[in-house]
Amino acid sequence: MILKTVKLVLRCLYIVNTLLRHKNRSLGSFFYSIKFLLTKRQSFIGICQIIYLMAKEITPRSEDYSKWYNDIVRKAGLAENSAVRGCMVIKPLGFGIWENMKSVLDGMFKDTGHVNAYFPLFIPKSFLSKEADHVEGFAKECAVVTHHRLMNNPNGSGVVVDPSARLEEELIVRPTSETIIWNTYKDWIKSYRDLPLLINQWANVVRWEMRTRPFLRTAEFLWQEGHTAHATSEEAVEEAKMIHEVYARFAEDYMAMPVIKGAKTESERFAGALETYTIEALMQDGKALQAGTSHFLGQNFAKAFDVKYLNRDNKEEHVWATSWGVSTRLVGGLIMTHSDDEGLVLPPKLAPTQVVIIPIPKPDPVIMEHADKLSAALKAQGIRVKIDRDEKKRPGFKFAQYEMEGVPVRVGIGKRDLENNVVEVARRDLKSKESVAIDGVVKYVADLLGEIQNNLLAKAKAFRSDHTTSVDNFEDFKSAIENKGGFVQAHWDGTPETEDKIKELTKASIRCIPNDSVLEEGKCVYSGKPSKQRVLFAKAY
Amino acid sequence: MILKTVKLVLRCLYIVNTLLRHKNRSLGSFFYSIKFLLTKRQSFIGICQIIYLMAKEITPRSEDYSKWYNDIVRKAGLAENSAVRGCMVIKPLGFGIWENMKSVLDGMFKDTGHVNAYFPLFIPKSFLSKEADHVEGFAKECAVVTHHRLMNNPNGSGVVVDPSARLEEELIVRPTSETIIWNTYKDWIKSYRDLPLLINQWANVVRWEMRTRPFLRTAEFLWQEGHTAHATSEEAVEEAKMIHEVYARFAEDYMAMPVIKGAKTESERFAGALETYTIEALMQDGKALQAGTSHFLGQNFAKAFDVKYLNRDNKEEHVWATSWGVSTRLVGGLIMTHSDDEGLVLPPKLAPTQVVIIPIPKPDPVIMEHADKLSAALKAQGIRVKIDRDEKKRPGFKFAQYEMEGVPVRVGIGKRDLENNVVEVARRDLKSKESVAIDGVVKYVADLLGEIQNNLLAKAKAFRSDHTTSVDNFEDFKSAIENKGGFVQAHWDGTPETEDKIKELTKASIRCIPNDSVLEEGKCVYSGKPSKQRVLFAKAY
Repeated sequence: MILKTVKLVLRCLYIVNTLLRHKNRSLGSFFYSIKFLLTKRQSFIGICQIIYLMAKEITPRSEDYSKWYNDIVRKAGLAENSAVRGCMVIKPLGFGIWENMKSVLDGMFKDTGHVNAYFPLFIPKSFLSKEADHVEGFAKECAVVTHHRLMNNPNGSGVVVDPSARLEEELIVRPTSETIIWNTYKDWIKSYRDLPLLINQWANVVRWEMRTRPFLRTAEFLWQEGHTAHATSEEAVEEAKMIHEVYARFAEDYMAMPVIKGAKTESERFAGALETYTIEALMQDGKALQAGTSHFLGQNFAKAFDVKYLNRDNKEEHVWATSWGVSTRLVGGLIMTHSDDEGLVLPPKLAPTQVVIIPIPKPDPVIMEHADKLSAALKAQGIRVKIDRDEKKRPGFKFAQYEMEGVPVRVGIGKRDLENNVVEVARRDLKSKESVAIDGVVKYVADLLGEIQNNLLAKAKAFRSDHTTSVDNFEDFKSAIENKGGFVQAHWDGTPETEDKIKELTKASIRCIPNDSVLEEGKCVYSGKPSKQRVLFAKAY
Repeated sequence: MILKTVKLVLRCLYIVNTLLRHKNRSLGSFFYSIKFLLTKRQSFIGICQIIYLMAKEITPRSEDYSKWYNDIVRKAGLAENSAVRGCMVIKPLGFGIWENMKSVLDGMFKDTGHVNAYFPLFIPKSFLSKEADHVEGFAKECAVVTHHRLMNNPNGSGVVVDPSARLEEELIVRPTSETIIWNTYKDWIKSYRDLPLLINQWANVVRWEMRTRPFLRTAEFLWQEGHTAHATSEEAVEEAKMIHEVYARFAEDYMAMPVIKGAKTESERFAGALETYTIEALMQDGKALQAGTSHFLGQNFAKAFDVKYLNRDNKEEHVWATSWGVSTRLVGGLIMTHSDDEGLVLPPKLAPTQVVIIPIPKPDPVIMEHADKLSAALKAQGIRVKIDRDEKKRPGFKFAQYEMEGVPVRVGIGKRDLENNVVEVARRDLKSKESVAIDGVVKYVADLLGEIQNNLLAKAKAFRSDHTTSVDNFEDFKSAIENKGGFVQAHWDGTPETEDKIKELTKASIRCIPNDSVLEEGKCVYSGKPSKQRVLFAKAY
């Protein structure tokens, strides 16, 4: 108990200190809570809860964007670091978002004719060497399985690797599955009748990254990887472009995250691809996030794994391939696109809980009857609702908690409000609230969810538009990248040398050659050589 | 082309040979096809298709059960071996069944208050040693990651492990996740308010099995593992039992696979558990399949990872745990419970395609109009329908193909039938068919799916009942196990020594101490010592 008191005091000191340091931070929930305390004569426990809550507040974006991101991930309970270097634990809220993403994307893949399958976690080492570019890209930092048995340590403590159980050929934990899949396709594809083969897999992959950040870059991550086989080059390109569209549609329509569609330059392509199509999003710190890629692989993997088919003229040809993937990185993009200094902000379409109902000041039979009725009515509309029945926590604490967790809509049901036949509906994105007549509240909430979804997309689009700059000389280029951040549209001479030089000088890379880039005569901002269109530069994650 | 002709001839010889050897096999589809050929003057391609199809037929159960199983897995396109020893590729049909299982189970877990999360693939080697029994069970045959980098082979060919990239501590690819999860729970659980913690994970795990069989026992497999933490022993036992019920309900209501619920004997328990509840199913060869287990882990893992909570009296206590899992092994159980010598038989509730519509003899506008209309009407009832629009394959070929793939209901739409306003509806389980008036076909098919589901369960129950024997002496015991197979109910003296001895002599193990076992005075079939109830013996997978 003494220890707990000391901890509490330390927390209070921390808060006061925090408050003094950041005079401009949003104190809405704090003042609400103070007012609540003063007017309702709350107990000591209530005060403690609010103090504890304040200690949970997060670093403002303006102060340290990177710390802000980590704070949200940790304090909203999205993920945390594990005992294994670079691997994260995805906590229920973070995983709930990923589950919703999976479910929507899986439906989109199936609607476009794809089926799911599952290929082995391990890839024989020799497979990685079969495609020359691929091995350069993926056979470097990876997890290598060399043994298949442990034994009791002869010295009696714990277990050690059994040296006699060395594998003949080492196995690599898949960093991506082109090689093992194309080795399998060899047996599946004989004739043009077997094509196209449209397969997707949901899986975990491992890349031994040196610097990791939850969701954005982790050693192990979850993703989907589509691997398709086609009779002609045209069909394969069409597939890669179609999936590119699916990804863009998912990002905008579900994540409310606007993206620029375009092609990667040669040096930014996937290892083994002839063309990589990308969707690029802009984060609130002005850095770009590559959110999904779709690759036209030509016949590279078919040749490496000898996958041929008999065409309609009974002649053997190598098969044409695509691969494409999005990963748990999308969760990172979602967090960074919408969240604010009070915590996570989630677009309703992907929020695990869309509406939370909170009894005020606490659950009692009359309030709960209304809460249950409202919850059932919302559920009947397909809305994901939760009632907070906790009797120990105060409303102020709960409000701040759901704000932190990004629940789009909060409905407060209070005794006095009920007498007036109203409830209080608050929206997370604008932090505003309204009294709404109970009669119309279901429709109001359903509409509000749609409005929040639209508002988040509009806001993100406005941000991107404010942070996209067209420049025509290298001074402006450097200044835009350095001072303003965001996307910079500039002419480029098309050479990898210039691309590298610009990256070296400014840390900005070419994110893509946008699909909708207009053809215009211009001069490369760096070399002055002629160029036919602007490409998109930015610093990137 | 010459090669192809030779192959064809060899296939024909194979078929004739097969036919001669197995006079009693079901030749329905063959004769149908022959009749079809003779009456409709089919082309050479048609004849080839049927010959090819016959070559795809499977070994009868009566001849070689194990080969029958492997044939179905391969020929129905459920799974195949991969280039990595013991790891399978789960093909679209097999994965589709698993997806349906996942979706139902996930809903059942959520309905009982669980949420999903995701924990790392890798476990630090030292974690496995922390729980004494657990290390004995799981730290033996496993995949060990020792390095994190490959490099180009100095001799110029391929890649080799970079000796400088040795990990400080080896990582084990999870064989099960108790250790890494309880190491995480340490930070999540502080007070009784944090309990119960009800988390599930869908994941891949690896156990380096020596003898593998698709779905039933593979080095890598997919599963779910629930890991819950509770304040009291009673609550944890209740959770383990509740999940045990969920598993049994899933097996019977969805898989149409009846199971015996019971507790494992001490020697058959999960490594680290105080009690293991199991569901045991009976396969058509009379061997038992352990289909799912739920474990009460006591405080073993809480103590090993020092997970304590402050109880309501403000005292520290160790947390109580459960874990529970089912895996892709269920797909193996499903195959073996219902399938026959014509191929896979699937219970409608889990069949990826519940109804296939086949135009006879081939798609034409009038037939397809009816097919599309029927498909839409069935889909509106939530039924998973597929129309086979392939113009190159003959009906006989298609019939046999969907029989092989276990599609529960086949609707044939023919021109002449349409004139009479009927279609032909065939059910896979009984291989019978009916002419059904078009007007009532949607209801007929919907009802039929329910009837097939019930029939499969009833049939499996009857089989089990026919293959369950109660014996009172060891001669009868041995004879039942050896000659009849199936479950044997017998008295046992409760000692591991007797259990081991019986297993050694008969290969039968105690599958469980059934929940509904009646208390009765008896004598152990082996030792003659007193016993209070019968336990369930069988040879097992």
